Amino acid sequence: MSVRDLTWSKTEKKIARAAFDNAYRREMQEIKEKVQKKVQNFKEDQDVWELYNYLSARRKDMGGKYDYRYSVLIYVFGRLLREGYVTEEELQGLSEEKITYIKRLVEF
Amino acid sequence: MSVRDLTWSKTEKKIARAAFDNAYRREMQEIKEKVQKKVQNFKEDQDVWELYNYLSARRKDMGGKYDYRYSVLIYVFGRLLREGYVTEEELQGLSEEKITYIKRLVEF
Repeated sequence: MSVRDLTWSKTEKKIARAAFDNAYRREMQEIKEKVQKKVQNFKEDQDVWELYNYLSARRKDMGGKYDYRYSVLIYVFGRLLREGYVTEEELQGLSEEKITYIKRLVEF
Repeated sequence: MSVRDLTWSKTEKKIARAAFDNAYRREMQEIKEKVQKKVQNFKEDQDVWELYNYLSARRKDMGGKYDYRYSVLIYVFGRLLREGYVTEEELQGLSEEKITYIKRLVEF
């Protein structure tokens, strides 16, 4: 059976949703703070376009990363755990199999 | 003779360059202030992407508008005068013919 075919119980879906939403909230908060810092340090006209480039990259990145389809969720959590937007505690309650897969992805 | 074929004296070029640069500086300053205001009012995550959309539109707009080629400069100043980024005083010293063309464009 492939990672993409794992089944998710009702409880696991709840846990996954909450962890996913928390991660999204954290990362958006981080982006907001970075934007505020950049804007406080505005000096050159060029800084405005640097902010634009930053947001452009973040938007692309966030769009690709936060994909809540069960077929890819293991990969999503692997990345979020690696990047620190999700903690192991938040994933508790998922099956051992899923946790193992997710942790294995952290190494990649 | 077309507006595009007008010749620019050395003095006129100096005046045009200064007026053009002032306009650009003013508009960039306005954008910076708008960005700062938007960021101060950040509430929802969506506000971050609204800022991105705003900057995206401004970048496109500024790129198209600030075109310092003598063949199109009359049109550029017509628009900048209409939008208030250039004043009539700043254009003083350009030939009567150029001023007339520029003012005529303000109406469009």
